[in-house]
Amino acid sequence: MVMTAAELAAFLAREFPQVRDDFAVEHLTGDGIVMRLKVAERHLRPGGTVSGPSIFALADVAVYLAILARIGPVALAVTTSSGVDFLRKPEAGADLIGTARLLKLGRVLAVGDVLIRSEGQEAPVARANMTYSIPPRR
Amino acid sequence: MVMTAAELAAFLAREFPQVRDDFAVEHLTGDGIVMRLKVAERHLRPGGTVSGPSIFALADVAVYLAILARIGPVALAVTTSSGVDFLRKPEAGADLIGTARLLKLGRVLAVGDVLIRSEGQEAPVARANMTYSIPPRR
Amino acid sequence: MVMTAAELAAFLAREFPQVRDDFAVEHLTGDGIVMRLKVAERHLRPGGTVSGPSIFALADVAVYLAILARIGPVALAVTTSSGVDFLRKPEAGADLIGTARLLKLGRVLAVGDVLIRSEGQEAPVARANMTYSIPPRR
Amino acid sequence: MVMTAAELAAFLAREFPQVRDDFAVEHLTGDGIVMRLKVAERHLRPGGTVSGPSIFALADVAVYLAILARIGPVALAVTTSSGVDFLRKPEAGADLIGTARLLKLGRVLAVGDVLIRSEGQEAPVARANMTYSIPPRR
Repeated sequence: MVMTAAELAAFLAREFPQVRDDFAVEHLTGDGIVMRLKVAERHLRPGGTVSGPSIFALADVAVYLAILARIGPVALAVTTSSGVDFLRKPEAGADLIGTARLLKLGRVLAVGDVLIRSEGQEAPVARANMTYSIPPRR
Repeated sequence: MVMTAAELAAFLAREFPQVRDDFAVEHLTGDGIVMRLKVAERHLRPGGTVSGPSIFALADVAVYLAILARIGPVALAVTTSSGVDFLRKPEAGADLIGTARLLKLGRVLAVGDVLIRSEGQEAPVARANMTYSIPPRR
Repeated sequence: MVMTAAELAAFLAREFPQVRDDFAVEHLTGDGIVMRLKVAERHLRPGGTVSGPSIFALADVAVYLAILARIGPVALAVTTSSGVDFLRKPEAGADLIGTARLLKLGRVLAVGDVLIRSEGQEAPVARANMTYSIPPRR
Repeated sequence: MVMTAAELAAFLAREFPQVRDDFAVEHLTGDGIVMRLKVAERHLRPGGTVSGPSIFALADVAVYLAILARIGPVALAVTTSSGVDFLRKPEAGADLIGTARLLKLGRVLAVGDVLIRSEGQEAPVARANMTYSIPPRR
């Protein structure tokens, strides 16, 4: 591990100011990371459900930071492929917690998957997979 | 076709006020719809690229409205599965145009795919597939 | 749980004779199933790697039997959506072990994911997600 | 275009003898290829439907050959990500025709999508997307 949770949070706040208020790094795990979507009015859709793009964004940032934690902040990784299955309506008024596992961290591609739950609930709201392309290191 | 482009736009503005300024219905097609993401500062990431969640949102709303155009605004369709491949960096300062095709409109599930391009460019920025669950009609 | 591992194996052999020699039910788990692909010459590609369709088939049958274990053999579930990421070259001469988790078992849709490994290896060869449509029960 | 349809067929027969009887190259198109799955008993499931793995295989080989037609037979491209939506039951006794479009042919990754139909039918049986990793050329 080459970055701590605090360093990842600082990197996110500095490089992605547009989403700095949306996400929090909960903690790093042996094979990934746990991230929080701090659900606010702007993430909601009619009926109080969290929007699909917000769920996508949580999965995307979780795998991204799980990669950076292991290769450092210099890398300009970009998402190349993704899949999301929406499983259940999130709880109204609860944050979403994304638990990401890094399944492959190769020279060129990294792949992770994510389970997303309403905080305090066991049954997942969504599952996602994300592939990142990692640029050559000079 | 049971809804016009103008009716779809009015429906979107009324039911999804959070995104009414993001999208415009360009026109309906024989098998789908063409939608525009009116790219603004809030959709961008460092380097001027359009964010993944914004591209996801364009694909999602395009297939959603392609379905509603054919079954009407009463249906409470929800996204169940999705996939997005990110192919190229969007043009800086250009809107994104999503061309959706409805591939299946069943009793229970509807499936569409979407090609997303920077306006005026031929090479696609992303391709997406979206599956919606359609609730039983009473 | 309404079917045992032995009942699932018997069901597979009876209903899907074409693949009865390909797969074995290892055991049921609390949230899914563990299945084996008995790798043979017909599953291989040049270089000794297991073919993509064989890996797809293992993921597909694993989620299918994880569902049937919980709803019984009468259901005529069909795959509607699927995604597979290929992560590493399988070990030559080793069976593949698929560990499936059922993430949702709804009235209409069931969703599971699968990690596939060469037997005895920790690093996964592939990950997959599968959605099944479950027909109405009479 | 650096390979003809006949050269692709010869390459397939030579390098992938296990599947040489399954597939035929129909013709190359401006942006892709049209491939045929010669449906036989071994591709079927109970009820006369074509198996999921066979449909996956058709999509996979179609995008693979669409790539090789443009970069030549030396490349050792491997599938990295894939998605398949199953839309309708194939016609009994009909071949499947896969129409692939190459959406990106990059230095490192190539992405295509495929519509699969029963021969002579308009409504698609499945849609698929395939990403290939292309090894560095020396």
